[in-house]
Amino acid sequence: MPPVTALPEGHPLRTGRTSTSPLVLAARCEPVPHTPVWFMRQAGRSLPEYRAVRAGTSMLEACWTTDLVVEVTLQPVRRYGVDAAIFFSDIVVPLRAVGIDLDIVPGVGPVVAEPFRTAADLERLRELSAEDVAPILAAVGALTDELGTTPLIGFAGAPFTLASYLVEGGPSRDHARTKALMLEAPDVWDALLARLARITGEFLRLQVLAGASAVQLFDSWVGALSARDYRASVQRHSADVLASVAGFPVPRIHFGVGTGELLSEMRAAGADVVGVDVRVPLDEAARRVGAGTALQGNLDPAALFAGPEAVAAQVDRVLADARDLPGHIFNLGHGVLPDTDPDALARVVDRVHARTAH
Amino acid sequence: MPPVTALPEGHPLRTGRTSTSPLVLAARCEPVPHTPVWFMRQAGRSLPEYRAVRAGTSMLEACWTTDLVVEVTLQPVRRYGVDAAIFFSDIVVPLRAVGIDLDIVPGVGPVVAEPFRTAADLERLRELSAEDVAPILAAVGALTDELGTTPLIGFAGAPFTLASYLVEGGPSRDHARTKALMLEAPDVWDALLARLARITGEFLRLQVLAGASAVQLFDSWVGALSARDYRASVQRHSADVLASVAGFPVPRIHFGVGTGELLSEMRAAGADVVGVDVRVPLDEAARRVGAGTALQGNLDPAALFAGPEAVAAQVDRVLADARDLPGHIFNLGHGVLPDTDPDALARVVDRVHARTAH
Repeated sequence: MPPVTALPEGHPLRTGRTSTSPLVLAARCEPVPHTPVWFMRQAGRSLPEYRAVRAGTSMLEACWTTDLVVEVTLQPVRRYGVDAAIFFSDIVVPLRAVGIDLDIVPGVGPVVAEPFRTAADLERLRELSAEDVAPILAAVGALTDELGTTPLIGFAGAPFTLASYLVEGGPSRDHARTKALMLEAPDVWDALLARLARITGEFLRLQVLAGASAVQLFDSWVGALSARDYRASVQRHSADVLASVAGFPVPRIHFGVGTGELLSEMRAAGADVVGVDVRVPLDEAARRVGAGTALQGNLDPAALFAGPEAVAAQVDRVLADARDLPGHIFNLGHGVLPDTDPDALARVVDRVHARTAH
Repeated sequence: MPPVTALPEGHPLRTGRTSTSPLVLAARCEPVPHTPVWFMRQAGRSLPEYRAVRAGTSMLEACWTTDLVVEVTLQPVRRYGVDAAIFFSDIVVPLRAVGIDLDIVPGVGPVVAEPFRTAADLERLRELSAEDVAPILAAVGALTDELGTTPLIGFAGAPFTLASYLVEGGPSRDHARTKALMLEAPDVWDALLARLARITGEFLRLQVLAGASAVQLFDSWVGALSARDYRASVQRHSADVLASVAGFPVPRIHFGVGTGELLSEMRAAGADVVGVDVRVPLDEAARRVGAGTALQGNLDPAALFAGPEAVAAQVDRVLADARDLPGHIFNLGHGVLPDTDPDALARVVDRVHARTAH
């Protein structure tokens, strides 16, 4: 593990504020007082207090408003007592920060004004600097102070998923143009992912310097690929991103939906913790990633729409699957769905804590 | 294999017209003159001659118009020389046939007027009779005559996928209400899937009696489940559907998207041929389903958006993966995407035939 002195003075992993938090311990496969739990997309959408403070502010505007990011990020920590915060943002924020014209359209998702089509478009992807994301880094810093012993997870989108938004011009089920570019123009593809890896790697590095105690790299759509295509065209770029924070003693979590075929490859890209979706039980996932790797997951977010008893049974099933893991961070197998009852999430936190305390 | 005399006189598998077709031979793991090829969703969407004849007719109306079904079904056979026809329809057609109020909305998909919510809704799912689908069975019969030695594949949607449409009220990414019902009300769930299995099983049986030489059971969304949930709550109902045509010497193909974790379970449900999506190479899929099972797949439909050379390389890769299979039906790993260039599909058919002829 890199020395804590690689971090700036005052960083919560250097001062020790978060270094014995359940999240950091579990990520390092060290003994924990209880299994840590947080939820992907815990900040936002399903919380009434979020909808109240976001009213009248667009998603992108909100992501660039320091006070709002801080407040929305803290809301689920206050409400649920989760073991980590993840700062409120969107994976396209660093693309916007380097000048890509895009918007996050309610009910649709990110929409890119001029989709990426040819090598000439590469020039639009300049390097990211701290100034480009100053209000966000200010939020990370403020959160780190506010959160005390609760770690803040920094995050970014992985090159494949960002490339899909750029090439398709928005969310896509099929990623047809993205895959076509990957197959027919490997040089352009490589150059595109290399630039995205520099942007997103630098964004993660800046978040760590600003106080994040862990990072999660989201490759939301990479489950659309076979392991062969992932190895040939994606893995080294994700590895470059994760390598950008390898000099810090900061756990690196890596997750994508439907990545059962890719778990060992995502581990090999440099993840300390591999996030697992609902399709693969955690014990089977452990066999795929190999010994000594912590896992994160994998309660089905859809299960939260069932009654409390059914949810409790599903929580217990996940905990049973995780029994022999060297490290387990309890999470959903995907993000919180917008219509989720916050009380259902509160019951999950309480149950995980109660069942694993020792 | 059941005797051909189980089929009505004049059935193309009984007269021998289709019994030595490459599709039927490959499904039975017998030697073929060339690898058979067809495409899921080959009839419709991407063909200009389809858009011409469909103009002014709604999707559901088209599905119930015998002449239109015949014409649209034959179009890709004429254009591409594929080794099978699959009759133009939609998986919700048998639900409409038993009186469920639904529509297929352009750009959206099936929308159910009153989603399924409680046990009381079970009463709305009565049994299917031949009269309910008479124009469709007439199309199957007419097609069987028109197609000569080219087999017609009958098809239906599997209980899980149909249940998802009924419960969600339309297409869903998350299947949250569906999974919640499955987890919290297993008795209602079981009764729902049992009724759907009766409807869809009878629909397949009627298609076989009308002249279909093979059937494909689509479980489009079942890849959203873990193998554990599939075994506990879905598999036996899919097995009941496939058992409804087990008395006929008709190959049964079973397919769902993202079902890498479920391939052996779908085989065990009674499939003679397992369809494989793009995420699992065919040689690896063969290990999962076990020896002696034919596979169908798995060119990425997104790859067809690349240039001809890149597509040819992808076709060759699929054929290389399939080299040691006991039987291989070439297909896409998912349905034809709407914007696909028909010429790209024509080149795939020609290349598969040329590379595998002997």
